[in-house]
Amino acid sequence: MGCGKMIGLSPILDKQSDIPIYKQLYSYIKQEILTGTLRENTRLPSLRQLSAHLMLSKNTVETAYQQLLAEGYLQSRPRSGLRVLPLERMTLVNGSVASRSKEELSHSRLDKPGVLYDFQYGNVELAKFPMKAWKKCLLDALGTEGYEVLGYGDPQGNEQLREEIALYLYQFRGVSCAPNQIFLASGTQIAISLLCQVLPLPSRVGMEDPGYDGVRTVLMNHGREIVPIPLESDGLNLDALRQQAVRTVYVTPSHQFPLGSVLPVQKRSQLLQWAYENEGMIIEDDYDSEFRYQGQPIPALKAMDGGDRVIYLGTFSKSFFPAVRMSYIVLPEKLAAVFRQGIRPYSQSVSPLLQKAMLNFMRDGHYERHIRKMRKLYQTKHQILIKSIHHHMGERVEIIGQKAGLHLLLDVHNRDSGELIARALERGVKAYSPIHHWMDASLCPSSYLMLGFGGLNEGQIEEGVIRMKQAWFSD
Amino acid sequence: MGCGKMIGLSPILDKQSDIPIYKQLYSYIKQEILTGTLRENTRLPSLRQLSAHLMLSKNTVETAYQQLLAEGYLQSRPRSGLRVLPLERMTLVNGSVASRSKEELSHSRLDKPGVLYDFQYGNVELAKFPMKAWKKCLLDALGTEGYEVLGYGDPQGNEQLREEIALYLYQFRGVSCAPNQIFLASGTQIAISLLCQVLPLPSRVGMEDPGYDGVRTVLMNHGREIVPIPLESDGLNLDALRQQAVRTVYVTPSHQFPLGSVLPVQKRSQLLQWAYENEGMIIEDDYDSEFRYQGQPIPALKAMDGGDRVIYLGTFSKSFFPAVRMSYIVLPEKLAAVFRQGIRPYSQSVSPLLQKAMLNFMRDGHYERHIRKMRKLYQTKHQILIKSIHHHMGERVEIIGQKAGLHLLLDVHNRDSGELIARALERGVKAYSPIHHWMDASLCPSSYLMLGFGGLNEGQIEEGVIRMKQAWFSD
Repeated sequence: MGCGKMIGLSPILDKQSDIPIYKQLYSYIKQEILTGTLRENTRLPSLRQLSAHLMLSKNTVETAYQQLLAEGYLQSRPRSGLRVLPLERMTLVNGSVASRSKEELSHSRLDKPGVLYDFQYGNVELAKFPMKAWKKCLLDALGTEGYEVLGYGDPQGNEQLREEIALYLYQFRGVSCAPNQIFLASGTQIAISLLCQVLPLPSRVGMEDPGYDGVRTVLMNHGREIVPIPLESDGLNLDALRQQAVRTVYVTPSHQFPLGSVLPVQKRSQLLQWAYENEGMIIEDDYDSEFRYQGQPIPALKAMDGGDRVIYLGTFSKSFFPAVRMSYIVLPEKLAAVFRQGIRPYSQSVSPLLQKAMLNFMRDGHYERHIRKMRKLYQTKHQILIKSIHHHMGERVEIIGQKAGLHLLLDVHNRDSGELIARALERGVKAYSPIHHWMDASLCPSSYLMLGFGGLNEGQIEEGVIRMKQAWFSD
Repeated sequence: MGCGKMIGLSPILDKQSDIPIYKQLYSYIKQEILTGTLRENTRLPSLRQLSAHLMLSKNTVETAYQQLLAEGYLQSRPRSGLRVLPLERMTLVNGSVASRSKEELSHSRLDKPGVLYDFQYGNVELAKFPMKAWKKCLLDALGTEGYEVLGYGDPQGNEQLREEIALYLYQFRGVSCAPNQIFLASGTQIAISLLCQVLPLPSRVGMEDPGYDGVRTVLMNHGREIVPIPLESDGLNLDALRQQAVRTVYVTPSHQFPLGSVLPVQKRSQLLQWAYENEGMIIEDDYDSEFRYQGQPIPALKAMDGGDRVIYLGTFSKSFFPAVRMSYIVLPEKLAAVFRQGIRPYSQSVSPLLQKAMLNFMRDGHYERHIRKMRKLYQTKHQILIKSIHHHMGERVEIIGQKAGLHLLLDVHNRDSGELIARALERGVKAYSPIHHWMDASLCPSSYLMLGFGGLNEGQIEEGVIRMKQAWFSD
């Protein structure tokens, strides 16, 4: 009765046979592995589970498992149980299983051999995360009565959370919108995908080049033709945009990704003007606007849009933490009505439990406090990174995009990023190439590196820079 | 410095003027509302926030707010602060604001007037949810060191969780796969969308008709032509499938959605044979396979697939709870390699925090226990629903699809679902029409209703049926 039976392991065991039961079980499992029915890495049931299932003693099952371990068909790892070894490794077996397992274990831990200073963009510093407050908000959310945090929830997203987001956008980004213009999605890529599916976006979309490859890939995978719009030092080249037969353009005006420029207010007006004259649409990705370190705060492009021509994208990935997987779309009123109708057969992709926790977190003022705290912290880190680079590398490098955000680009004059990354890695530092953000990879200067500093503390940042200097300029 | 400034509310207040400051503030906000800058439902800053921002006393701000409240530009709701009223409501203002607000409050609570027994498909019974164990697993996940539960995580999904899923599939569904064939997604619709984007699926896709409209919509919104394949009483009409020029078909063999049949083993073999002969692909959506109440457990179609022609879709929405927003794709090895390459620019859409919590939940045996417990519980509910219908409605109705799952269809002979739903609602019962699952809505018998019983307890199920009987057959 029921599907609880272990359909997979169902040996026919003959208790009358001269062959001991453990041996029959061992032969059966070995056969399943060799024929490929039990594939590599498959985890086997625990002693308890299998002995209960087959109504055998634990001893019998254990003896069978031990023989399979000894012969190298299985391996045992702490906390993750017994698993089928890949066949190619089985042929290598000739020593004690125990010693081999240990070797493997240490090998698997060395996937990133000795990375001590990881300049990966998108990392968050664990030590500064408001874990206690977040824990409380999450527990409060779990205590909520009703289906609110167990069911599918509002397809558009929790209404009260959308109210909090609307208030936040008004206070911090100058964007005035009603909660019913806001739609949640489990990441900006899901948001872009929904815009393609539901609005739908036109077949040609203009995009900053270089620009965020995550969005470009999603657009292309929805059959959209990408029209690359080149950049100037202060962002989008508007003349180039005007010459293209596109009416929709994706931009990152607060902090161009990945080059880091901030679109000046004159260009913002001109971009809006372009949209009004062409009945065009602007998709504004405001991904890390919270972190701007120089000059006056600049409101979002959306805040200047009197003509309802801006689709605004926000995310909690940078301002809070990526694992919450929560982004949102703000649509002009008319499009919001169309979109709301269109997503009726869709389930909301953000967990209602996390939505409720985020609502608590915002409502209790933690979110605002967190952003203010992180802005100061990131500013300090940002300054230290820039200072360290200037101090240790001097004229041999140039920093690109240093007004805002959680990353910058480094131009290491006359050097090649592949070589630089390899050399840095030998000293325990992981740097990255931004090449995949260029539409035509050959146009990315090979001397560019991308350094994200969100996940490193101040000491680590300086030490990382020193090590890169040693790795690259050991003359 | 920084974006913390409230960009939105920035009145120019003249302290030398004869007009009191509160009045100037009041006029400014009123103007912002009437010109549409502050839109309906926008939430205003709290007294504390605004007084700090404008460097005014709380009294001044409060007086301005009170006047706006009194004149009906704003409304106040418990716990959600002050908000801009819709303009059309403002014109109605003529009495005291307090009394109107109360009226509105009670009105908003009556969106579902008096629904006591909601037969909504997808609901979960809160009382039976293993809240304590889940809470512990979530807290343990939060205690995890490193970026694991803060960052973006593995694009494919947490590797250890995928191991647990592989083990589960092997034990419970007879599916043998390696963890690297498994890909997580924040819902089955996201999974289907990714298959369209990344594999990609061909331009024509066969689909059971009637079939799950959530998947159909996503396929169509990715430009796929849906080829409806009719059903017989025991599921997909294979002759009809063979006559169509399609090579990919979406099916729900464990429990046809929404008609409820279980595809017999002979038909499964024939379906696989069709795929092998046509180099076709079968997308098997195994959405509620855990809950089967009659006969022997039937392994997934994927378990019978020796030719790597089945793409398997699983979800935790039915077996655990929808708000976890966690589904997964199991791909044949070759496709898995292609897919893994294709999703490299994608972020994982399931929260790594919830992934880790789910890993803990499965590893500690809670998931297996939960499913066993819920299978018994749902079986009891299922029996009570069927018994109650037989007992109270007798020959006047027919039950469709009663071997499995969390819902069934009711054919109320010679009646119209619209009228039945309206009458039931008057007695506090919410029933649903399955009409949107038919490709051509006119083909859905108008006498069909859909009853989901997951969210109701045993007493509520019987009482709900009694009330429907009274509502429909009050002769």
